[in-house]
Amino acid sequence: MPRYIDIHSGFVDATAEQLQASHQSRLSIEGDEGVHIERAWLDPECGKVFCLSTAPSKEAVMRVHERAGQTTAEVYEVPIEAQ
Amino acid sequence: MPRYIDIHSGFVDATAEQLQASHQSRLSIEGDEGVHIERAWLDPECGKVFCLSTAPSKEAVMRVHERAGQTTAEVYEVPIEAQ
Repeated sequence: MPRYIDIHSGFVDATAEQLQASHQSRLSIEGDEGVHIERAWLDPECGKVFCLSTAPSKEAVMRVHERAGQTTAEVYEVPIEAQ
Repeated sequence: MPRYIDIHSGFVDATAEQLQASHQSRLSIEGDEGVHIERAWLDPECGKVFCLSTAPSKEAVMRVHERAGQTTAEVYEVPIEAQ
């Protein structure tokens, strides 16, 4: 399954609880789209959230975010990884 | 130790081997700066690389990239994570 990183905004000064609630809202619908968001990281200073997910397509990642009220057009397919 | 995500560009059509070589060039110097880059993901279509690291500061992440010839100003501190 392809892997994606997406970036969405609007979380300036959000707390860990708020990020978790937002993540939970995506988790509750992601199965409908065959998406799994593995991890999400927040920079509360600029309000950006970075999600790492696996999904059938970029559009599926976008739909999950849109349905959770976190619309983003910034989704990158990242098929190559180094560790 | 604070966690960071950085984004740098210039890797359009790069291969897994090229990403690994680039990652290795950072790994060989990161210790000097107290940085550890855990994972790096590449979108070969747009050429962006996303690194997840722990480091003493944003500037230390920038210095490791600069010394490896991968200068970036786009470094985000991500103290909050959801899974």
